[in-house]
Amino acid sequence: MEQQISAGISRTIQTRLVLPPDTNHMGTIFGGTVLAYIDEIAAITAMKHSGKVVVTASIDTVNFLSSARIGNVLILEGVVISTGRTSMEVYVKAECQDIATRERTLTTTAILTMVAVAENGKPTPVYGVIPETEKEQHLFKNAQARKERRMKLNEFAKELI
Amino acid sequence: MEQQISAGISRTIQTRLVLPPDTNHMGTIFGGTVLAYIDEIAAITAMKHSGKVVVTASIDTVNFLSSARIGNVLILEGVVISTGRTSMEVYVKAECQDIATRERTLTTTAILTMVAVAENGKPTPVYGVIPETEKEQHLFKNAQARKERRMKLNEFAKELI
Amino acid sequence: MEQQISAGISRTIQTRLVLPPDTNHMGTIFGGTVLAYIDEIAAITAMKHSGKVVVTASIDTVNFLSSARIGNVLILEGVVISTGRTSMEVYVKAECQDIATRERTLTTTAILTMVAVAENGKPTPVYGVIPETEKEQHLFKNAQARKERRMKLNEFAKELI
Amino acid sequence: MEQQISAGISRTIQTRLVLPPDTNHMGTIFGGTVLAYIDEIAAITAMKHSGKVVVTASIDTVNFLSSARIGNVLILEGVVISTGRTSMEVYVKAECQDIATRERTLTTTAILTMVAVAENGKPTPVYGVIPETEKEQHLFKNAQARKERRMKLNEFAKELI
Amino acid sequence: MEQQISAGISRTIQTRLVLPPDTNHMGTIFGGTVLAYIDEIAAITAMKHSGKVVVTASIDTVNFLSSARIGNVLILEGVVISTGRTSMEVYVKAECQDIATRERTLTTTAILTMVAVAENGKPTPVYGVIPETEKEQHLFKNAQARKERRMKLNEFAKELI
Amino acid sequence: MEQQISAGISRTIQTRLVLPPDTNHMGTIFGGTVLAYIDEIAAITAMKHSGKVVVTASIDTVNFLSSARIGNVLILEGVVISTGRTSMEVYVKAECQDIATRERTLTTTAILTMVAVAENGKPTPVYGVIPETEKEQHLFKNAQARKERRMKLNEFAKELI
Ligand SMILES: CC(C)(COP(=O)(O)OP(=O)(O)OC[C@H]1O[C@@H](n2cnc3c(N)ncnc32)[C@H](O)[C@@H]1OP(=O)(O)O)[C@@H](O)C(=O)NCCC(=O)NCCS
Ligand SMILES: CC(C)(COP(=O)(O)OP(=O)(O)OC[C@H]1O[C@@H](n2cnc3c(N)ncnc32)[C@H](O)[C@@H]1OP(=O)(O)O)[C@@H](O)C(=O)NCCC(=O)NCCS
Ligand SMILES: CC(C)(COP(=O)(O)OP(=O)(O)OC[C@H]1O[C@@H](n2cnc3c(N)ncnc32)[C@H](O)[C@@H]1OP(=O)(O)O)[C@@H](O)C(=O)NCCC(=O)NCCS
Ligand SMILES: CC(C)(COP(=O)(O)OP(=O)(O)OC[C@H]1O[C@@H](n2cnc3c(N)ncnc32)[C@H](O)[C@@H]1OP(=O)(O)O)[C@@H](O)C(=O)NCCC(=O)NCCS
Repeated sequence: MEQQISAGISRTIQTRLVLPPDTNHMGTIFGGTVLAYIDEIAAITAMKHSGKVVVTASIDTVNFLSSARIGNVLILEGVVISTGRTSMEVYVKAECQDIATRERTLTTTAILTMVAVAENGKPTPVYGVIPETEKEQHLFKNAQARKERRMKLNEFAKELI
Repeated sequence: MEQQISAGISRTIQTRLVLPPDTNHMGTIFGGTVLAYIDEIAAITAMKHSGKVVVTASIDTVNFLSSARIGNVLILEGVVISTGRTSMEVYVKAECQDIATRERTLTTTAILTMVAVAENGKPTPVYGVIPETEKEQHLFKNAQARKERRMKLNEFAKELI
Repeated sequence: MEQQISAGISRTIQTRLVLPPDTNHMGTIFGGTVLAYIDEIAAITAMKHSGKVVVTASIDTVNFLSSARIGNVLILEGVVISTGRTSMEVYVKAECQDIATRERTLTTTAILTMVAVAENGKPTPVYGVIPETEKEQHLFKNAQARKERRMKLNEFAKELI
Repeated sequence: MEQQISAGISRTIQTRLVLPPDTNHMGTIFGGTVLAYIDEIAAITAMKHSGKVVVTASIDTVNFLSSARIGNVLILEGVVISTGRTSMEVYVKAECQDIATRERTLTTTAILTMVAVAENGKPTPVYGVIPETEKEQHLFKNAQARKERRMKLNEFAKELI
Repeated sequence: MEQQISAGISRTIQTRLVLPPDTNHMGTIFGGTVLAYIDEIAAITAMKHSGKVVVTASIDTVNFLSSARIGNVLILEGVVISTGRTSMEVYVKAECQDIATRERTLTTTAILTMVAVAENGKPTPVYGVIPETEKEQHLFKNAQARKERRMKLNEFAKELI
Repeated sequence: MEQQISAGISRTIQTRLVLPPDTNHMGTIFGGTVLAYIDEIAAITAMKHSGKVVVTASIDTVNFLSSARIGNVLILEGVVISTGRTSMEVYVKAECQDIATRERTLTTTAILTMVAVAENGKPTPVYGVIPETEKEQHLFKNAQARKERRMKLNEFAKELI
């Protein structure tokens, strides 16, 4: 699919209130809840880019830099930063906002590879992406380096099976 | 904390039926649901090891090798494979079983770093771990290599912020 | 509280994938699910404006203009459009996007009155709001007319008790 | 559909315990949760009347007169109070009961318009309704006035789009 | 606690729509969902009788006589039928209604023993109950026989540990 | 179906963290949540034995011997202990573990009868079971006695309808 579309088409924002069921009994959000939110926004982002149903092929290492608490607001942003034939790299940024102080803290960033699938469940081609912001251009340029790193990591991952 | 305890103490098994709310409209499980399950079992595994509340510090790259469908059974196993002063590396393996054929497929493996926290939310020391199976011993031995790889990845991750 | 802050501070976006648990057995979203989403975004919007916990005092008549189906994306936007002493009027717009065609349809619009409450649960003063867009200015100007209409409706509502 | 059936056939009661996931971190129920409960009981009420699947067309202005807390019981009652060709007006009353004192407080009342739909998603005729209680007769008689008020409100609503 | 109150005070009704998340992939409701609904209504029933928080001590054998499907309505009724010093026997009846035919089928009946607990978690005395309907009077009279049967069953249950 | 398979094939383990949404406002788990978990593991156990979809026909009297609290871990084990033509008896044991003390307490045991059903919803034959552990052999031997007890209880249950 030669056609290329702007990153703006996929850009997606989520704002979530951290509620009791999302948290442990000390009132801080579960990593798993954040990961599920990250995957949901990555899926929407990739669906908006491709116009297809998508599945998650991989999620690169995620570091949780700071925690979010009950009553905080979690703000997630997703955007497609590079594409292969059937796969899309989605960049997700999650920040936590304290309501009283309006202060924002970085919770985490993540890169997921989402694959567009046809009705029969098989990978299907996607448009290319034209990065817009400086950050998107930078991430677009380094896609190949990330891919190589990922392949090297996959080598190591074989010992885990 | 000089004391060391056997990996067997933390070993944890989860068996889950894949149900409609866990899946997209093509009936395959969301990556985010699997990630949330992986985080939950890692938390239980680390809590059983440490006897403390834990938070997720990081999850290493996760590849979803095959999907799971409504009516399948998802089997997850977690075990502590190495420890730092306050952190524990937890290895999680997720397999999918087809009920009719009894065939098991590897869905994914993951390594999470969980940190034990005291009532005040600050990191608190954990026991060492004595690996039991051959696989656990192998993963235990390579903990240092993984840590170095992780630090290198964290270098790269700075461009994501 | 004489201080006034820009509407931009409260503006909030939510993007949601319509999933099986949100829908009836014909695959269309429940009105109640949309109402719950509208209330959640209104609460976040009002919390961002006021820096306080808020409760919903009322929601003006909601018409569901078109429905959303499994696999669609629901996009909600909220913004504070006028304020009283302790109350905030929040305008919410919900649109549904078909992933394949990228077509957006208006699902509904709503106006909610949220009241900021202190730790003791009592109403507490909020900042004034400075509308930004033309639409916000228009809605800001008509706040008094809406208030009068609401009071008249409340007269009629007495027969419902 | 000339046939008329008694309001008693649709009358529906719901009793719900207010639980942590329904509440904010001050322990009071979300407006959105109450709205979702109101929509669910209105749907059941209209399904019992029509014997068909129904969708929510609109919900008239809702005022939350008092709040409900964790551990309270929420009692909802729904009944069809008037009908059009394919639509039904459903009246819902929500009360909150304190378990210790047995005291009941009115939380809110609401009127929803539900439309019966056939398998193809198109509106389909419903029975008329014969009101039973004095209140139902009163609400039945005023259906036309409410309809006119609703149409006038819809005029105003156009400025919201 | 010598005081006795009428069974009517505890009588509780629940009406639930069977939705996708409650069902297996053949569209029939899980036994576990019905059991959770039965326990919830029993808890509300016992709370209304005692004015206290309650916990479930036991549930007598439950037979699922017929199943409920997506789109059906489940109607549950609970009432306190006898009391001990701190415990209450609650009778629950669950019926399934087909919306199109209005036909009701008995899904199951159950008897649960709920115990009132004080703030410290310790059992606390409850009022006696005065049965109202013929059925309630019958169940009230046979409370002793059920208690003996339960004790005999508990003997057998020891082999299960 | 003459073929017999080992109990080991069905043996299933579940480990669950007790979280806020599972508990009442005193922080102890609902009986209904435990029952839903018991039914889920019994279903998985019976599906692994039969390779078929299963429905719950009955659950024998359940006594809750001790409660579980937020932050505790709940460990459930299920195994098929006897079979009829189309039905399987599943034994489930639920224990609660305190994370800090590692102490395990018996929460409850239960026996459920699960019936394998074909695509048309009709009961379908299952394999026989060969018990493995001493406990399983004991429970296998007493299946007939339990069945007779169950039939006697069903006699009594008729008064409940
Ligand atoms: C992702 C999946 C569809 C790839 O299938 P496949 O048979 O390997 O298909 P292909 O070899 O044609 O690869 C398709 C694309 O996926 C990419 N891909 C495959 N595995 C990947 C991985 N682990 N990480 C990143 N990208 C991956 C390929 O590079 C290829 O990209 P390209 O078309 O842009 O060059 C398949 O592995 C799968 O279904 N996994 C499970 C997905 C899922 O259900 N996730 C949710 C939870 S389990
Ligand atoms: C994890 C966390 C407690 C670490 O806090 P900190 O101030 O960095 O504490 P320390 O420097 O003392 O580090 C504590 C341990 O965590 C480890 N750690 C910190 N960040 C890590 C990361 N990104 N990946 C792996 N391990 C990490 C450290 O190596 C150290 O391990 P050790 O004691 O075994 O040597 C803190 O970053 C945090 O609270 N993050 C959010 C956790 C969370 O809430 N997750 C859920 C979703 S947001
Ligand atoms: C909303 C609530 C706090 C108002 O309390 P009150 O005792 O009437 O307080 P006040 O009279 O001081 O009114 C406070 C503000 O709310 C506004 N308000 C009260 N009822 C309202 C209604 N039905 N619609 C719109 N605004 C309303 C008042 O106009 C006032 O606004 P202002 O300060 O900007 O002039 C109270 O009715 C309440 O707690 N309701 C339940 C809220 C809730 O829990 N909702 C969730 C589901 S039940
Ligand atoms: C369970 C069910 C399939 C049995 O159907 P049926 O028409 O009675 O079928 P059969 O008479 O052929 O009985 C099938 C098996 O179920 C067993 N069975 C039926 N009712 C039972 C009960 N209450 N307790 C234990 N076993 C029971 C029979 O003994 C028979 O076992 P066997 O084949 O090993 O000898 C039927 O009652 C049903 O669909 N119930 C609802 C199940 C359900 O949906 N549960 C979830 C919540 S409602």
